[in-house]
Amino acid sequence: MRATFMYGAGDVRVIDVPDPTLQQPTDALVRVVQTCICGSDLHPYHGMPATAKGTSMGHEFLGIVEEAGSDVSTVKAGDVVVAPFAWQDNTCDYCREGLQTSCRNGGFWNSSGVGGGQAEAVRVPLADGTLVKLPVAADSALLASLLTLSDVLGTGHHAALRAGVDPRTTVTVIGDGAVGLLAVLSAKRLGAEQIILMGRHKDRTDLGREFGATDVVAERGPEGIAKVRELTRGDGTHAVLECVGHLPAYGQALGVVRPGGTISRVGVPQYDDAHIGWNLFGPNITLTGGPAPVRNYIEELMPDILDGKIEPGRVFDRTISLEDTPDGYRAMDQREALKVLVQP
Amino acid sequence: MRATFMYGAGDVRVIDVPDPTLQQPTDALVRVVQTCICGSDLHPYHGMPATAKGTSMGHEFLGIVEEAGSDVSTVKAGDVVVAPFAWQDNTCDYCREGLQTSCRNGGFWNSSGVGGGQAEAVRVPLADGTLVKLPVAADSALLASLLTLSDVLGTGHHAALRAGVDPRTTVTVIGDGAVGLLAVLSAKRLGAEQIILMGRHKDRTDLGREFGATDVVAERGPEGIAKVRELTRGDGTHAVLECVGHLPAYGQALGVVRPGGTISRVGVPQYDDAHIGWNLFGPNITLTGGPAPVRNYIEELMPDILDGKIEPGRVFDRTISLEDTPDGYRAMDQREALKVLVQP
Repeated sequence: MRATFMYGAGDVRVIDVPDPTLQQPTDALVRVVQTCICGSDLHPYHGMPATAKGTSMGHEFLGIVEEAGSDVSTVKAGDVVVAPFAWQDNTCDYCREGLQTSCRNGGFWNSSGVGGGQAEAVRVPLADGTLVKLPVAADSALLASLLTLSDVLGTGHHAALRAGVDPRTTVTVIGDGAVGLLAVLSAKRLGAEQIILMGRHKDRTDLGREFGATDVVAERGPEGIAKVRELTRGDGTHAVLECVGHLPAYGQALGVVRPGGTISRVGVPQYDDAHIGWNLFGPNITLTGGPAPVRNYIEELMPDILDGKIEPGRVFDRTISLEDTPDGYRAMDQREALKVLVQP
Repeated sequence: MRATFMYGAGDVRVIDVPDPTLQQPTDALVRVVQTCICGSDLHPYHGMPATAKGTSMGHEFLGIVEEAGSDVSTVKAGDVVVAPFAWQDNTCDYCREGLQTSCRNGGFWNSSGVGGGQAEAVRVPLADGTLVKLPVAADSALLASLLTLSDVLGTGHHAALRAGVDPRTTVTVIGDGAVGLLAVLSAKRLGAEQIILMGRHKDRTDLGREFGATDVVAERGPEGIAKVRELTRGDGTHAVLECVGHLPAYGQALGVVRPGGTISRVGVPQYDDAHIGWNLFGPNITLTGGPAPVRNYIEELMPDILDGKIEPGRVFDRTISLEDTPDGYRAMDQREALKVLVQP
């Protein structure tokens, strides 16, 4: 089959690899119908050291079950399913607590002998714990929105949930990428009335307004912080959803959070050390977040997509074939595209 | 009157200063009956640059109201009262949210023209919001325990509360100072069944066991982390109460916290930057805490002292006169004393 591999910064190729096969009775094989490129795929696209072997790519996909192992009971051949960006048993204590990203038996795509989603097919370990059946046909117009259940919608939801967003909280979202925009949508869905979106790409922040942002601040750094404070009587907001992952975004979060408030990070931090001294401690700020246990959120979020209440699939502004994924990376990197949908 | 001033690292003196007087109709004058030296007083004792002017000291006291301003309605002359380590109106939005340390009109002792508690008397601003009447006589045997409501008991409680301690959480407390020991007591009070105390002073950790610690780990660094993990099937604990404030204690907290768990800091951080990259983010660890809004906790904690359910005053292991405060600082610094009570 054909699959996307990265060989170093800026070096993405679509190559021939052996077709995946069932290896465990708990595995399932999924023929990929839709997959996509993630903002986090751009981190190695910028910094990955060159390697002869390459690494398979992609952690967001939905598709049709082609074959299920003998121990798989919740999905069967022909089912349309979505996979979270991590696989898990969904039965261990961490999973039961809703922290599937720390599953005792789980793991991540593109590691430990498991391939990636930017391919024609994927072997899914622990299929019962990982795959969720979608009650739609494989050509449903809702597929793109349902695909966001695999990562970006659940990640935006995680940011908002961890920050305690509710109708009484004011919210700042930092970042106008797909996760930032869906963090806006999630904050709106949880009832927040003031949602300030910090982003400087007008086409994206326009979509953010449609998703529920009440204010847009295009400035960054001290100017951006001052603007948010102007909008909040000098106080900052209760919740700050940091959807970027770079150090300046964290600094911005510290600058706009209200005393007693919460900074919730879902952008994978591209730094190790940062300021957590008196600036964070003095006003009793909470810092939380992490990789979203999206498996935990699929059943909650899916009905709103099926009912047409939310349309998270609007973050996809370009659709390409699998052969074109290298250009898809380039387009996202150059900000020609917000988020690229891939149809193998 | 006589009052304690610090003039630089290691330089504490008891000097004559003018008697405080009412300056605002919302002020009260309190004659100090008991005050004490705080672990946080040792930070300037170690590092304060020498100054000719000096700064008044002490932020924990209880005493008798000598005079109340015309606008003060909740306390009157003769009342026995305790003061939190910050003063506040207790009516602004932050105070109503339980974050009195961020009061819009409040402040801290020993600044803005307000003196300190290690003195014969104190002018208390915003007396209605700050002072809490104690239903005991000025010679009650409970005074020492009630004095801990001004800081260390409320601070231990804040650490546990912010970490979400309840009967289902396992807890590590880092630090065997007065705050650490009262964090143990607080975790026990909130129902935790496993409480691991990390501390290496046996007399202190013995008191910690009496307060509720189920395990004591004397080792620090990697050895200490390994011991805690042994005690928790390799996982670490849900809650980690960091009651020291130095960087190695934060590193220890990161090492013993369970995925999805919370590090709650109440030791004033003596550092600016620290690791909050993948180690914190990957396992979805929450970092919280700050100066405790102890005013918010006094009404909740006081009944347990009055009923004899808890005896937080046991952290005081030395009692001195006001004239002896310089030696009290020395004794605490040299760890001869755990916490020094001062009776002016």
